[in-house]
Amino acid sequence: MSIELTAIPGLPLIAPGDDLAEIIAGALRDNQIEPASGDVLVVCQKIVSKAEGRVARLSEVEPSPLALQVAADAENKDARVAELVLRNTNTIVRMKQGHLIVETGPGWICANAGIDASNTGDPDQVLLLPEDPDASAAALASALGRAFECDIGVVISDTWGRPWRVGLVDFAIGVHGINPLRDLRGEHDMDGRELHHTVHADADALAAAAGLLMTKGSATPAVLVRGYSAPAGQGSGRDLIREAETDLFR
Amino acid sequence: MSIELTAIPGLPLIAPGDDLAEIIAGALRDNQIEPASGDVLVVCQKIVSKAEGRVARLSEVEPSPLALQVAADAENKDARVAELVLRNTNTIVRMKQGHLIVETGPGWICANAGIDASNTGDPDQVLLLPEDPDASAAALASALGRAFECDIGVVISDTWGRPWRVGLVDFAIGVHGINPLRDLRGEHDMDGRELHHTVHADADALAAAAGLLMTKGSATPAVLVRGYSAPAGQGSGRDLIREAETDLFR
Repeated sequence: MSIELTAIPGLPLIAPGDDLAEIIAGALRDNQIEPASGDVLVVCQKIVSKAEGRVARLSEVEPSPLALQVAADAENKDARVAELVLRNTNTIVRMKQGHLIVETGPGWICANAGIDASNTGDPDQVLLLPEDPDASAAALASALGRAFECDIGVVISDTWGRPWRVGLVDFAIGVHGINPLRDLRGEHDMDGRELHHTVHADADALAAAAGLLMTKGSATPAVLVRGYSAPAGQGSGRDLIREAETDLFR
Repeated sequence: MSIELTAIPGLPLIAPGDDLAEIIAGALRDNQIEPASGDVLVVCQKIVSKAEGRVARLSEVEPSPLALQVAADAENKDARVAELVLRNTNTIVRMKQGHLIVETGPGWICANAGIDASNTGDPDQVLLLPEDPDASAAALASALGRAFECDIGVVISDTWGRPWRVGLVDFAIGVHGINPLRDLRGEHDMDGRELHHTVHADADALAAAAGLLMTKGSATPAVLVRGYSAPAGQGSGRDLIREAETDLFR
């Protein structure tokens, strides 16, 4: 049993309005990589946000007093970025020493509402998370499926820190064509004990795995995964968001 | 750029005292898999703990009043397991509705102090985390390096839940022969902006990736990773533990 992760080489810088599926299809063809049914494409949110024009211009942002305070508490934070974070925040989960860990979008909890100020191609621009990364994933799956006559899964990933752990890993924010969860509850282990808590977050693990080939500066924001045996069913990136009522850390 | 993850097939059930390196080396040879320098072997803590005899017998455990209370609050918890969790706890991070999220070992924060009651091979037995998984990783790296005349990295992984997210993924608790962190701080992005926060937890991503081939019941608790380009340097599983002082969630 093997899984192969391949970074798709030669993707150009993406600009607002670009047809991301066409560009990825072209890069796949240029490199003689032919996606097949069952493959999963992991795409970094950054190029999805860029193609979808999810950009904000810092020069057009007027920071609020709270944003100014956050920036003053931070070591390296632009008050206009803090303002954009606050505008994209449902709930502040932690605000301390200029760090803003917030709930954003449908319930993602991450630093700075996922707003990304690096590698945008323009120092005045920052990237917001895609509006609906499940829809972004569905559009990519559909267009690439037509281009290569196959059914592929697509995961849109973003890079986040974690409580208690040093370092960033990639998480799945959008999912199409696969079930993001491998639910083993009700099955039994080798001793006959029923498994009560065993749901694996496969889409997050796929994102983390692909992230090994996506480090900043590598210019490989899309990775094709082959040989992964997905659990039955379909699902959404939202399936990975723990509801506040069952969350011990909200 | 490709990374290939291969589950090592044919590993037998491991028993206390087994020579895990010899068993893995045999399985690699049986399957004509020859590790080479730069490869990383990810091994699930379960078989490490078993080989190292890190087992406790439930029938020998007398639950304390607190353990009885935890079990009474839970849906499916054995008070003797709760007692073992408490005995392996440095600090309780959350205790609610029978859930125990605790700090254990050198600073791992996970449910139930990593105590594992499934697939032990004996319903009276539970597995404790390895005493020193960095040392376990070093021993495996050294023995397999001798057997195959190469320098491989080893990651010992465990499967944990996460705040805010549904589902389990694998994390690195022991590391040898690789640097678990890819530190890009001080480098610049394509717009010339300095990267301030960009440290990637590569060893956790390797564990998560390997976990895709390690689901319960699959009987593949060891995965060989080829083609991964590790960051320079060496490190320990402890490098992935965030210090309490810089942790916003302790």
